[in-house]
Amino acid sequence: MENAQLQAIDAYWRAANYLSVGQMYLLGNPLLREPLQPAHIKKMLLGHWGTTPGQNFIYAHLNRIINAYDLNMIYVAGPGHGGPAMVANTYLEGTYSEYYPAISQDEQGLQKLFKQFSFPGGIPSHVSPECPGSIHEGGELGYSLSHAFGAVFDNPDLVVACVVGDGEAETGPLATAWHSNKFLNPVNDGVVLPILHLNGYKIANPTVLARISDEELHSLMRGYGWEPYMVSGSDHEQMHHDMAAVLDTIVQRIQEIQQQAREHHNMERPMWPMIILRSPKGWTGPLMVNGLPVEGSFRAHQVPIPDPAGNAEQLNQLEEWMKSYRPWELFDENGKLQQWLQEQAPKGLRRMGANPHANGGILLKDLRMPDFRDYAFDVQQPGKDKASDTTVLGTFLRDVVKANLSSRNFRIFGPDETLSNKLNAVFEATSRQWMAKIEEHDELLATDGRVMEVLSEHQCEGWLEGYLLTGRHGLFNSYEAFIHIIDSMFNQHAKWLKVTAEISWRIRIASLNYLLASHVWRQDHNGFTHQDPGFIDHVVNKKSSIVRVYLPPDANCLLSVMDHCLRSRHYVNVTIAGKHPAPQWLTMDQAILHCTKGIGIWGWASNDDGDEPDVVMACAGDVPTLETLAAVSILREKIPALKIRVINVVDLMKLQSSSEHPHGLDDAAFDLLFTATRPVIFAFHGYPWLIHRLTYKRTNHRNIHVRGYKEEGTITTPFDMTVLNEMDRFSLVQDVIERLPQLGTSCAYLKQEMQDTLIRHRNYIKEHGQDMPEVADWVWKG
Amino acid sequence: MENAQLQAIDAYWRAANYLSVGQMYLLGNPLLREPLQPAHIKKMLLGHWGTTPGQNFIYAHLNRIINAYDLNMIYVAGPGHGGPAMVANTYLEGTYSEYYPAISQDEQGLQKLFKQFSFPGGIPSHVSPECPGSIHEGGELGYSLSHAFGAVFDNPDLVVACVVGDGEAETGPLATAWHSNKFLNPVNDGVVLPILHLNGYKIANPTVLARISDEELHSLMRGYGWEPYMVSGSDHEQMHHDMAAVLDTIVQRIQEIQQQAREHHNMERPMWPMIILRSPKGWTGPLMVNGLPVEGSFRAHQVPIPDPAGNAEQLNQLEEWMKSYRPWELFDENGKLQQWLQEQAPKGLRRMGANPHANGGILLKDLRMPDFRDYAFDVQQPGKDKASDTTVLGTFLRDVVKANLSSRNFRIFGPDETLSNKLNAVFEATSRQWMAKIEEHDELLATDGRVMEVLSEHQCEGWLEGYLLTGRHGLFNSYEAFIHIIDSMFNQHAKWLKVTAEISWRIRIASLNYLLASHVWRQDHNGFTHQDPGFIDHVVNKKSSIVRVYLPPDANCLLSVMDHCLRSRHYVNVTIAGKHPAPQWLTMDQAILHCTKGIGIWGWASNDDGDEPDVVMACAGDVPTLETLAAVSILREKIPALKIRVINVVDLMKLQSSSEHPHGLDDAAFDLLFTATRPVIFAFHGYPWLIHRLTYKRTNHRNIHVRGYKEEGTITTPFDMTVLNEMDRFSLVQDVIERLPQLGTSCAYLKQEMQDTLIRHRNYIKEHGQDMPEVADWVWKG
Repeated sequence: MENAQLQAIDAYWRAANYLSVGQMYLLGNPLLREPLQPAHIKKMLLGHWGTTPGQNFIYAHLNRIINAYDLNMIYVAGPGHGGPAMVANTYLEGTYSEYYPAISQDEQGLQKLFKQFSFPGGIPSHVSPECPGSIHEGGELGYSLSHAFGAVFDNPDLVVACVVGDGEAETGPLATAWHSNKFLNPVNDGVVLPILHLNGYKIANPTVLARISDEELHSLMRGYGWEPYMVSGSDHEQMHHDMAAVLDTIVQRIQEIQQQAREHHNMERPMWPMIILRSPKGWTGPLMVNGLPVEGSFRAHQVPIPDPAGNAEQLNQLEEWMKSYRPWELFDENGKLQQWLQEQAPKGLRRMGANPHANGGILLKDLRMPDFRDYAFDVQQPGKDKASDTTVLGTFLRDVVKANLSSRNFRIFGPDETLSNKLNAVFEATSRQWMAKIEEHDELLATDGRVMEVLSEHQCEGWLEGYLLTGRHGLFNSYEAFIHIIDSMFNQHAKWLKVTAEISWRIRIASLNYLLASHVWRQDHNGFTHQDPGFIDHVVNKKSSIVRVYLPPDANCLLSVMDHCLRSRHYVNVTIAGKHPAPQWLTMDQAILHCTKGIGIWGWASNDDGDEPDVVMACAGDVPTLETLAAVSILREKIPALKIRVINVVDLMKLQSSSEHPHGLDDAAFDLLFTATRPVIFAFHGYPWLIHRLTYKRTNHRNIHVRGYKEEGTITTPFDMTVLNEMDRFSLVQDVIERLPQLGTSCAYLKQEMQDTLIRHRNYIKEHGQDMPEVADWVWKG
Repeated sequence: MENAQLQAIDAYWRAANYLSVGQMYLLGNPLLREPLQPAHIKKMLLGHWGTTPGQNFIYAHLNRIINAYDLNMIYVAGPGHGGPAMVANTYLEGTYSEYYPAISQDEQGLQKLFKQFSFPGGIPSHVSPECPGSIHEGGELGYSLSHAFGAVFDNPDLVVACVVGDGEAETGPLATAWHSNKFLNPVNDGVVLPILHLNGYKIANPTVLARISDEELHSLMRGYGWEPYMVSGSDHEQMHHDMAAVLDTIVQRIQEIQQQAREHHNMERPMWPMIILRSPKGWTGPLMVNGLPVEGSFRAHQVPIPDPAGNAEQLNQLEEWMKSYRPWELFDENGKLQQWLQEQAPKGLRRMGANPHANGGILLKDLRMPDFRDYAFDVQQPGKDKASDTTVLGTFLRDVVKANLSSRNFRIFGPDETLSNKLNAVFEATSRQWMAKIEEHDELLATDGRVMEVLSEHQCEGWLEGYLLTGRHGLFNSYEAFIHIIDSMFNQHAKWLKVTAEISWRIRIASLNYLLASHVWRQDHNGFTHQDPGFIDHVVNKKSSIVRVYLPPDANCLLSVMDHCLRSRHYVNVTIAGKHPAPQWLTMDQAILHCTKGIGIWGWASNDDGDEPDVVMACAGDVPTLETLAAVSILREKIPALKIRVINVVDLMKLQSSSEHPHGLDDAAFDLLFTATRPVIFAFHGYPWLIHRLTYKRTNHRNIHVRGYKEEGTITTPFDMTVLNEMDRFSLVQDVIERLPQLGTSCAYLKQEMQDTLIRHRNYIKEHGQDMPEVADWVWKG
């Protein structure tokens, strides 16, 4: 490599470092044209310096190979706390000023760039959604590599340079994400270039990967299936030289692998190259502050010079540090980057800050959708026939897959549960993508497939997020209880959606769709450990403009809901559905009407004939709906004079006030449904308190009595699960009787009968291990 | 090895396999003394066969080395779904019958053993708490290795044999747990012997680790710092021989390493041995069922012969399968294991089902506790002086560490945040334990220390759980937002505690204590990604007998709460505390009284003088308390006639009804505090809805108006955070005025003044990046 080019890279790096330090410290005097004064320093000093210079180094070198090889590349900053780096670089390449014209390419723009960083009303300290080119904020650590892989699936021309921090590398999700290479097809997918950045320290500790031998580290990477290239040191010139040489080698290696696969059809899993970059933490920063070492130590993690405004020596040290980058060589008299340095940056959409893959909504195309009505289960009579809701859904999803095979923009993700969740039909159209060994008796595996399965909810979530963020569509199917594994990832994605919705240049992306099957009430195989319906509780804490929760009671409703979810934008949709054969209630026309309203009276099950009922029986979820209807049928047979209204809730957010959620009913509409004074017995899929939290402001709240899951369960039948949690039909009948004193003693016999029946049930099940016939064979008679 | 011994091991293995199949299938005829009939078969067939024979194989071989080397060993079954294996083995060794006398060592006991498995009223299909010897249920996968390490810390004589399933190995938590060897001291800690069980398949997919080359797999394990020993095949005799030889080698290797460290003081991190066991899934089971391969395929995962009761050929196949184990050689005429086989099992407490480490409450000793009152912050006047609550707590924890150094039964766990959370004083007494390289400028690292830090909440949680389950004490300190990373692990531990509390022979263990610092309101460095107070919402869904939530408003309350938590048993205690200097309110005597009650009127801040107040100002959490008192001081100055009652809540569960939580106030007590009719303005640390969910049944609920975090935030000052979420003092004053129409138009001026002040605040902070002086310098005057 020519020295001139390496010198230009070095100058570019210095410029980025200078802008990074400026963001952390300066309110004014951005080009140091006058001696640095305390008044130029921010009052609160925030930011993470440690990772920043290394990232600036990487970014500058990536710019060179983008230019040299015309690469289509984006940048994922795992150590996203180093926000100043990506802000500085997207500013230098011009994209920042294009998105934010006030942050102009001159001294005034520089001053604003510096001031806004980590400043109230400005921008956060991470690579946040406000930063062009970012699809990964990195506030919470561990997901960079998963996001990177999600981004390159079905993007064969894309390269994602993914900087993995050595702190982040200690997290579980990152530790398993290295294995993503077993799921990457070298023909149809792009390339992830991981750059493991060993800067040696976390907040206060050294990192594990920086303190094992090079031999162990290389062995680890090879064991993960990667070919590691090491760049290690601190001498600027040597490091530039080494980094450039390694990157040239790697680009050639990637091209060879792709050629092998794409032209010579060699589909053996390759060892993809990756980089181990070992450079000092806080590289180019102050060596010592207050007599203690900073560069190369944990003290470089955040703000290395703590108080330049209050301490003249530190002020001087800061000025020297900033001047060590020689800003006068880098910026012209207006404060604009020198022309010869501008030329180092890629052009137009090749700039990593401007690459449309990093603003996926731009690239997003609607899915081609088959008509979901064509997959309807034929309901002749409510509750007469049984079907597995997710099995029916599978036929629809199969054809969604088919219809979009050629556009390659829809994938289904799941932790080894797509079959277990009964979406079997999907495999009539596609296979699981799998690049590890395939053996003789394997089924449904292929090097190219639309289903991504790995036993890591973190991986599924991270891949899907990366896939959505780059403008595609997807579905995550999982067991309900274990979706809590990604609670925190969901948090971050919901926060990302909330913030990006408020940024004008960020275009809305496809919704993150969860299908939670194998739910709390149906754990006959697995028992108590697999019973937790609390993901909904977690989800509804996030911004109401982002989150949606659906509890379709049967297959036709599930079809209608899923069609809606797959068409929607910028939401998180949570849909909970059963997978076992269960009674079907609504015809497709009824289902569409019901799901469109989201909540409604089931007239065919009610006998209030439009009058004020004696009692409202409400339900949400497939099992609660069954038990409610079974209770209603007992009541209607035994107390025919009792006027019952049956309400089913599909869209849980209908329960909340219209002032709190865009789907919420207004109080008048709620009162019309639930009355102002009558008892409401509500059978709910989840923890019962959630219904109270959603309805506490409603007129009739005091009369709402909720049954749901209350942490009682083991391996047993679905019906027995409802008994253990007092949500079964016989308990619901008792709930009604208790709340209607006017029924008087004439109903005492019925209550006793219900209690006796429950005792009979417990005895029967303990002996036979299955439900007594009257429960097992129950059919709604209407 | 003698052939006779290997034959005995094989016979023992056959016995365990026989009992495993029996558990899955048989209601009667446990010894197959009559021809198998459909009536002998369970109605619902449940269980996970795939992993079971491999685990039986391992267990039998471990029994041999326990005997041969007098090892103190327990068994962690990562693929815990294979419950039949550990149930069978603990039955064979006699412990099961000791814990459950009804499951006797005869034919009748066998019949009960078989029937109870996965049967309503019986036992779950996993290695659940009901199973002797289990500290790890394995219903949710991924935590076996972390639990195993937690168990051996400070147990220098203990060996934990940890079977890691190759499905489980794909999870993030497991993938990073291999690195735990960088934290294991070979002198003071015991040994984890991981046995990576490659049986090749998950539910429906092959596993990643089974489908990479042996070279890659060995490289991966060496990269993780382990020395792998492979045992691979399916021929029984050869496999017995290989497994025995490898185990002998490994025991010697472990003894050498320990000798090197313990006698020769060689503290270089060793490469600990581990085993890769590759055996067919569903080994010894049917090869083909219905014309499809089963043994060695994913079809062996659960119940390999699906319908022996309904299909004569399958019934025949099941009988042949069971007879292939030759039960007549294994059990005597009474159905008891033959004497010569009984002798294969270890004796007494050496039996893995009887080892007291697996029932840690037996070994648990109280911590030696310094008097927390000695660490009191001297409060001369409420709100006058500031202190960092966690810094004060650190001095107390330091001395807890010191007092228990010699008993080695207390550790502090955290993801690199113990310093960041300001528990610095702890490091006056101890260091972080770290067995990777230590370099010149490192601080607070040692090969032996009481603080365990790795950047993985999963690891911290898993280690701590393993430590507690084996009878020790600990504390997990973490950022509040990111504790959601272990939501699902918390679920499993809370479920474990609930179930073990109901098992008479399980002795209660120390509580799992969370200290959540760096909370939602104080994220000036990190902003929106670090703001989520929803862990409490998640926690309170679990059984009320298990969970406790504390929000101490100042340092003295924090001391009192933490003293209580560290002494408590069998709870999950969540304590949320601030780390930044903040006003201190209560003297130690007041704090003890307040925390003992858990909720109370702060008379010194109130002016209702025991009368019915005009308004109740309630608060929970340090920042809400500050804003409430600031609002009260404005109101008392501006509207002196207004009677205000100030209530502070430390123990959040006090708000719930006494019928719902053991700490809950009864309605009369609640009404006395909150009145039956007066407006309550409640400033809450978390999401506001949680207060409604806890209080919806209370008399005065309609008048409770809650302010809390509603997903608004960025990098800004703590006070500005309260403004963004309308929980600031000026908003609280407005809330009071709006709810007291009797104040009339005379107060309109005050409302306007509050609004103007907020506008002034926003302008000031945008310009200066810090709070205006009247907010920054505010002091309670009382």
